[in-house]
Amino acid sequence: MKIRSALATILAFGLLTAVVSAPATAQEKFTLRLAETWGPNFPIFGDATKNMAAMAEEMSNGRLKIRIDSANKHKAPLGVFDMVKAGQYDIGHSASYYWKGKVPNTLFFTSMPFGMTADEQYAWFYHGDGMELMQEVYEPHNMLSFPGGNTGVQMGGWFRKEINSLEDLEGVKMRIPGFAGEVFSEVGVSPTNIAPGELYTALERGTIDAVEWVGPALDLRLGFQQIADYYYTGWHEPATELQFLVNQKTWDKLPADLQAILRTAMKTAAYDMMIHSVHENSKAWASIREEHPNVQIKNFPEDVLTAVAEANDKLLAEAAEEDAQAKRIIESQAKYLKNARNYTDISLRAYLNTMAELNE
Amino acid sequence: MKIRSALATILAFGLLTAVVSAPATAQEKFTLRLAETWGPNFPIFGDATKNMAAMAEEMSNGRLKIRIDSANKHKAPLGVFDMVKAGQYDIGHSASYYWKGKVPNTLFFTSMPFGMTADEQYAWFYHGDGMELMQEVYEPHNMLSFPGGNTGVQMGGWFRKEINSLEDLEGVKMRIPGFAGEVFSEVGVSPTNIAPGELYTALERGTIDAVEWVGPALDLRLGFQQIADYYYTGWHEPATELQFLVNQKTWDKLPADLQAILRTAMKTAAYDMMIHSVHENSKAWASIREEHPNVQIKNFPEDVLTAVAEANDKLLAEAAEEDAQAKRIIESQAKYLKNARNYTDISLRAYLNTMAELNE
Repeated sequence: MKIRSALATILAFGLLTAVVSAPATAQEKFTLRLAETWGPNFPIFGDATKNMAAMAEEMSNGRLKIRIDSANKHKAPLGVFDMVKAGQYDIGHSASYYWKGKVPNTLFFTSMPFGMTADEQYAWFYHGDGMELMQEVYEPHNMLSFPGGNTGVQMGGWFRKEINSLEDLEGVKMRIPGFAGEVFSEVGVSPTNIAPGELYTALERGTIDAVEWVGPALDLRLGFQQIADYYYTGWHEPATELQFLVNQKTWDKLPADLQAILRTAMKTAAYDMMIHSVHENSKAWASIREEHPNVQIKNFPEDVLTAVAEANDKLLAEAAEEDAQAKRIIESQAKYLKNARNYTDISLRAYLNTMAELNE
Repeated sequence: MKIRSALATILAFGLLTAVVSAPATAQEKFTLRLAETWGPNFPIFGDATKNMAAMAEEMSNGRLKIRIDSANKHKAPLGVFDMVKAGQYDIGHSASYYWKGKVPNTLFFTSMPFGMTADEQYAWFYHGDGMELMQEVYEPHNMLSFPGGNTGVQMGGWFRKEINSLEDLEGVKMRIPGFAGEVFSEVGVSPTNIAPGELYTALERGTIDAVEWVGPALDLRLGFQQIADYYYTGWHEPATELQFLVNQKTWDKLPADLQAILRTAMKTAAYDMMIHSVHENSKAWASIREEHPNVQIKNFPEDVLTAVAEANDKLLAEAAEEDAQAKRIIESQAKYLKNARNYTDISLRAYLNTMAELNE
């Protein structure tokens, strides 16, 4: 049966509506363009977008295709917010705190120093006020924002010299960006920003004394374990959540089933990345332990942590005083964290400590 | 355009194939029947099946409907395995360790004493050998098995008298089922099994001395906090994962897009339940703290934990000796746990302890 005329096509769609349940419009195909902050084949983060796109395509039987442009293609790793807002891209994959220079309250939806763990933060997003507050921040920019994958607790960074007291931090030049950098600068650290590709050399040559990156899996690739012996545990980004941004017009033109597919694909890809991070970090840490016995795990000393926590409280109090929306977000997070952590302490923390003591 | 004859329908499907991408068969509708072990409106666990069914229906635009029968309907809470195997139901929602009397190696896919946390276990399922080993166990029974939702670390139970040493456990009558009950019985506890509805009265009247149930959210409903002062932290089920079972024939008759939708809906509902558990347990624990200041959190003393860990090792060694498949599963879990926990210790555990010390 060869039917090629336009009339026949119209007829066919008419019949389609008559005999099958799904309306003809639901069969429309969409190819959405996604811009990610990361370079091509960036591990874990880049796997999250590929995973999301594959789920969306498979579940929609090819009706929803997502074409991913990495940073080498669009050349604007930190332009994702603007490009999705303008509709130049339909979807973005990035991190909310990158936009704090543009829209200050985007800061709060990635991870905050001394804040919630990944489980607690997902609970705040999905059962507390998190999603609603985040949408309130992004709505004026015609975008929807969704969790986009969690790194877990980020490590506190690589130091070439051991930090034994607050004094030892004075004047330390450290790559630690964003809000955590501001907090650290309050206690004497000089935060610097250096492109990832130059970090190893900068640390080796003493241009910087320390570097905070992500965790074992991503740190291992940059080679810090070869030139720094002290690997500090984290306080500054306990649950770094990436972000999917969706242009509102793109969202509105999708039929309800494809909206549901896209929403679920993004949600699942985010959770999957959290689990993928556990896997890759476990593997990488085992390899560092095996091949670089020079590396020692250290907690920052108590006076450092106390000073940093006070600096963090001070900066948050200032932010809350300056802006009513910031105040509501900070208070919502603090309240949620309090109850959630009381429970985490008697369940997960107690269990992990029990096991650690047994294995001593 | 009204076309009602059989011929017209055939023609229409012919045209449909010609002009739209989805094959006509992909538009077939399916209503699958799901049997869950839980009663109607059972919190958290029952929410997971409703969440899964809603996602599947929405993403498939109504082509995949899932009708949920709770235990009041099918009357066989522990018959879910048999009913799904026989095709009496298409899908089951239960817990793998309930089938250990029937198929001993199903034991390993829920949670093991001193085993992996939820994150670590999901990583083992999705990036280690977990899914493959689980499927190997279920395949002879013509079923697929998928993670179905995590409770997080279960609490060690409610005791009316404080346990200060191993001696205090001697002869203690405790509701603690399954493998953990076997382990506890090795160190002197008398495990008993009592229907949930009778637990409160049994504990109140001294028919039993202690009761292990789940965690704050589900325990609170049964009222133990009114009659027991000592709430012990967990060791026996660090990451209880529920289970979706799918009849193989049902799975095979679904087109690829609906298989993808069902698989993703189950996966997402499982993750969602883990996060929902955090939320509900946090809320319930806040309420117990507020309204029942009599309740004290206790860790089991060191001699108890050491004895219980040794009993656990002994039982696992026996299981491994008796059965080659059990041996492979036990070894896979132990190996995965070792690396994953080394990483959890320097990331999540270190962070939680840092925060706890700061707040002291």
